[in-house]
Amino acid sequence: MTESGKPILYSYFRSSCSWRVRIALALKSIDFETVPINLIKDGGQQFSEEFQALNPMKQVPALKIDGITIAQSLAIIEYLEETRPTPRLLPQDPKKRAQVRMISDIITSGIQPLQNLSVLKQVGQENQLTWAQKAIRPGFNALEQVLWSTAGKYCVGDEVSMADLCLVPQVANAERFKVDLTPYPTISRINKTLMALEAFQVSHPCRQPDTPPELRA
Amino acid sequence: MTESGKPILYSYFRSSCSWRVRIALALKSIDFETVPINLIKDGGQQFSEEFQALNPMKQVPALKIDGITIAQSLAIIEYLEETRPTPRLLPQDPKKRAQVRMISDIITSGIQPLQNLSVLKQVGQENQLTWAQKAIRPGFNALEQVLWSTAGKYCVGDEVSMADLCLVPQVANAERFKVDLTPYPTISRINKTLMALEAFQVSHPCRQPDTPPELRA
Repeated sequence: MTESGKPILYSYFRSSCSWRVRIALALKSIDFETVPINLIKDGGQQFSEEFQALNPMKQVPALKIDGITIAQSLAIIEYLEETRPTPRLLPQDPKKRAQVRMISDIITSGIQPLQNLSVLKQVGQENQLTWAQKAIRPGFNALEQVLWSTAGKYCVGDEVSMADLCLVPQVANAERFKVDLTPYPTISRINKTLMALEAFQVSHPCRQPDTPPELRA
Repeated sequence: MTESGKPILYSYFRSSCSWRVRIALALKSIDFETVPINLIKDGGQQFSEEFQALNPMKQVPALKIDGITIAQSLAIIEYLEETRPTPRLLPQDPKKRAQVRMISDIITSGIQPLQNLSVLKQVGQENQLTWAQKAIRPGFNALEQVLWSTAGKYCVGDEVSMADLCLVPQVANAERFKVDLTPYPTISRINKTLMALEAFQVSHPCRQPDTPPELRA
């Protein structure tokens, strides 16, 4: 935390995992400071000794809060939920909570890791787009089918939940990697509805302290 | 659930994600039936129409319980924890819960997805071992460092937690992919301590209904 007691979010404007946490902070009206960690510049600032001491995984996001540092976006969001429960990001009913966590995990374990920066580096520049599309499409096929039975206005019923915090940044990644979203009308509809909410807008990659001028909107 | 009301676990003996859930079921003394889904045979039984209807991600594990089907191992374990809280797999203190979830997510999002069957198929047989090692080593480097500050007898303090349910199957994967574990004394020590517990033994890949005779122990 800063001297003023604000939590510090180590974040990269374009990181979809960082965006998930920024949405949670915005929804819960938690005032925080951003420390940008540029994943590209200087060979990747996440590899600095200083940052490695904070998060040995050398990834963003990490959140300094209440005297501890938490890495991994869902662990951060679950902690915020337990310590700052309003508005809630997990439904009250355990079965609906299971649906929220299942959808979140499909994205955070089943899709995003396969198209993240370190994997794309390994497959080589000329193969990156195809690889990322191959990672996202099967996941979106599954997600679309899951949402048929869980979705209302949002991913699970009519309340914004942790699942929605995972969905929107993953759709942005899909667009970045030129995945055709036509086969995913439910995903697209929910994404559009969520993007009308302020918390999803202020946390958007195009509006961060470290967003390069040419990408600002 | 079966007619007798038992939960049904769709599982593959060798799947590390299935093993996580089998440990949770064993620790919580939840009686269940296994329906084996062979990920190799018949081109992969997870691709059958019947199984896809249960889990559109076409992955194990999936658990039918209380009238619903949950996929994704951590979502299943969190549901079991909320509905069958004894013995607990998440500590009471929110900060320690955050540590447990962070370690679990490091493994389930940061390591396992990069070395799972579908990715290894994509990289081609001759590259599989190197790819898997490259996926596991950086994750274990991070994990070893995280455990220095969180571990007691187990991953977080002296109580078995969800993090331990993720650790043991991931260590087994590391051994399968011939990762040298010498640089990871903390991981190795905790793994050994956990493997002395009955719940980790009965759930082991070598003792499942679908374990091939030549791999039984």
